[in-house]
Amino acid sequence: MVARKLLGGLALAAALALSPAMADDTPFKAHEFTLANGMQVVVIPDHRAPVVTHQVWFKTGSADDPRDVGGIAHFFEHLMFRGTPKHPDGEFDEIVKMNGGVNNANTYFDRTVYYERVAKDRLPMMMELDADRMANLIIDDKVVTSERQVILEERNSRTDNEPSALFWEQMSAALFQASTYGSPVIGWRREIEGLTTEEARTFYNANYGPNNAILVVAGDVTVDEVKKLAEQYYGVLPARTLIPRIRPLEPPPRAARRVAMKDPKVGVPNFMRLYLAPSYTSDKNDEAYALEVLAYILSGAGDSSRLGLAIVKRDGIATSVGAFYDGGGIDDRMFGLYGSPAAGKTLADVEGALDTELAKFLAEGPTADELSRAKTVLVANAIYARDDQESMANYYGEGLTYGQSIAELEAWPDKIQAVTAEQVKAVANAYLRPERSVSGTLEPGEAPAATPAGGQP
Amino acid sequence: MVARKLLGGLALAAALALSPAMADDTPFKAHEFTLANGMQVVVIPDHRAPVVTHQVWFKTGSADDPRDVGGIAHFFEHLMFRGTPKHPDGEFDEIVKMNGGVNNANTYFDRTVYYERVAKDRLPMMMELDADRMANLIIDDKVVTSERQVILEERNSRTDNEPSALFWEQMSAALFQASTYGSPVIGWRREIEGLTTEEARTFYNANYGPNNAILVVAGDVTVDEVKKLAEQYYGVLPARTLIPRIRPLEPPPRAARRVAMKDPKVGVPNFMRLYLAPSYTSDKNDEAYALEVLAYILSGAGDSSRLGLAIVKRDGIATSVGAFYDGGGIDDRMFGLYGSPAAGKTLADVEGALDTELAKFLAEGPTADELSRAKTVLVANAIYARDDQESMANYYGEGLTYGQSIAELEAWPDKIQAVTAEQVKAVANAYLRPERSVSGTLEPGEAPAATPAGGQP
Repeated sequence: MVARKLLGGLALAAALALSPAMADDTPFKAHEFTLANGMQVVVIPDHRAPVVTHQVWFKTGSADDPRDVGGIAHFFEHLMFRGTPKHPDGEFDEIVKMNGGVNNANTYFDRTVYYERVAKDRLPMMMELDADRMANLIIDDKVVTSERQVILEERNSRTDNEPSALFWEQMSAALFQASTYGSPVIGWRREIEGLTTEEARTFYNANYGPNNAILVVAGDVTVDEVKKLAEQYYGVLPARTLIPRIRPLEPPPRAARRVAMKDPKVGVPNFMRLYLAPSYTSDKNDEAYALEVLAYILSGAGDSSRLGLAIVKRDGIATSVGAFYDGGGIDDRMFGLYGSPAAGKTLADVEGALDTELAKFLAEGPTADELSRAKTVLVANAIYARDDQESMANYYGEGLTYGQSIAELEAWPDKIQAVTAEQVKAVANAYLRPERSVSGTLEPGEAPAATPAGGQP
Repeated sequence: MVARKLLGGLALAAALALSPAMADDTPFKAHEFTLANGMQVVVIPDHRAPVVTHQVWFKTGSADDPRDVGGIAHFFEHLMFRGTPKHPDGEFDEIVKMNGGVNNANTYFDRTVYYERVAKDRLPMMMELDADRMANLIIDDKVVTSERQVILEERNSRTDNEPSALFWEQMSAALFQASTYGSPVIGWRREIEGLTTEEARTFYNANYGPNNAILVVAGDVTVDEVKKLAEQYYGVLPARTLIPRIRPLEPPPRAARRVAMKDPKVGVPNFMRLYLAPSYTSDKNDEAYALEVLAYILSGAGDSSRLGLAIVKRDGIATSVGAFYDGGGIDDRMFGLYGSPAAGKTLADVEGALDTELAKFLAEGPTADELSRAKTVLVANAIYARDDQESMANYYGEGLTYGQSIAELEAWPDKIQAVTAEQVKAVANAYLRPERSVSGTLEPGEAPAATPAGGQP
């Protein structure tokens, strides 16, 4: 069985889009329709090679995990690879592999996706497999118990023994006060340990209906072909009674926060700052596009961008600095800054330098040249990204599960082109404010002691 | 209608207890029994005056509020004073007042309590009133809409315009990463705005059954009298199907956190540090008692205690410093330190001085004299507290709703007497650790801007 990938870090999909103005130049154009049972279908024909990318996106992720059942969405993603009466445990991966395909799945805050890339004549086979596990998955103590161990081991190796992953968990928990984005996608260890067969069954019934899914097929197919196959394999599945998604929104940010973490396993000290910022879905007045441009201006071209030029090249304070915008999600997400000190410099030096450059930017805004270059590169990257079938499928699938429309997704380059210097300056001043932020330091040092015997586990 | 009181700050009830060794000297001795419908009853006879304290404790509080329905427990406490078909809106308070009684209610993380103090012959009347609203409350759009406005105004005046209350919210949110103790009892404003009639009805049905309540009657009554009345008024109420309480526990603390808040309304700057610490209910090996003694040693006698002697009197760094232990709750609660700088000193000076004194204590532990005085005073306070009927009712009611037993509650002075210097030193070293802490500063300064137009409300 292939390793399941747990998504973390930055959403890069936002940089991958199509310009309608270039529709004639591109092999990609998304078409959508809905099956009678409520399943959305998106087809992105791409006839350059006889392969297809087949994805099923579910509109549930860790931010939807019920209270104290954290990690169930990710846990369930693992269970989906176990077995059905027709295709017993282990057969799914084996069939894909024997047919020359690759497959995987991942879970994030607002969605879970399963995908395969195969030769085009294997598309019906993939649909049969995915529709089967969507309706007939075996969920019993045996698979739950063994998969729980797999996931605990995953948490152990990727989080509990990774200072940077633990640091990210602490930063997220400090940034989000009410939103469930503050909890890790994989779940807190104690929650994972407590996940039960009954909870997995409840989760399946409440979330894995065709009416909660988006099918994306990109590749050497026509819309009519996909429609016929989708109706045949997925159209027969009954809709399920879904549980409503509960989305606690952040209260108004009121105080600057800090996180200081030490761990003997840390090699390079790291400073990070996160600011609560609107996502592509939660923003108003297209602020997400301005935030995207802002991130590029600050560090998109590495040390040739504003932050790197000043802090790395000119002043030699840091070995690396950067900015990022994570706008992928239903609710407010984040804008971030980070950096690591050069020899002889401290994390405080790096933070001070970032604050100095930020203050300058907040006062002056971008230069005309910075703005123009940022927009040109972002749009060019979006055009280059069209060459990758899987990236395009991800871009549409992810955006649609977050509540964006195809029209909106395809207008991305135009929206980026329309961003003005004033808008970039305005979003920077609106969102890169101390009271919206968490600043964190990760450095070598003594790790926290184990929880004392008297405390809660 | 009297103002409803929202509890916050420190749980002082822990200092109020009885020594079984002194049972002959005290008018108080608690007796308990359970009605057929599951309602627990506690009777504390006190014949010094012909009055009674009548309390109904429900085992639900803000920490049990469903996700995104924060504030419903407190909101519902307000609704309970509106009306029933038999006693229309406003009549409850009026009847109590006309009968010379006083009454109120309050909500905290793990419980909600309603109480009246009246002449003993009015006890049946109080039971009739409380049993009536427990079973027959009118919950409609009219009362929900008007009460929502009352609570928004309450939040406005007591929290949103009170920097110290906002600071406490921020500190709590930073301390608790998974536990619902991290959300305010009154709820975030947005949640209050969204509370519906349907949610109030669901809450009532799922929580306000006699099988989820503890009746406490203290005063000029006998156990037999209360038993007869309790059966007559409360015994007839049907048990309800309760929703299970979901208690997310804290993950292992991993990183020191900080909160920096500025507000132009702040008069005196304040430093505060909170450490995650076991409660009387979640502790093992009686650590809560040692934490109680620790808090007293550090600052129980004000400037004559360790912190005040060093930081206020000797060094003149602070105008006031203190320590507290909040051990009241089902899950891990907190231990705190705080202080305000003297003229010419900074919050950093205060924090530095607290850390210096703390480091000394962690290395040395308490002196024999400190330990002995702390235990003597804590036990004496517990004995003095017996003089207050309402305090005793609160002590038993609160402890029992948190899962303690009468035997445990009555053993408090003995447990305090048994605490050793080694235990105090051990709990200090186990729990007053940087990675378990949030340090916060509240000082005058520019307040955060309103949330930008583009962000989520």
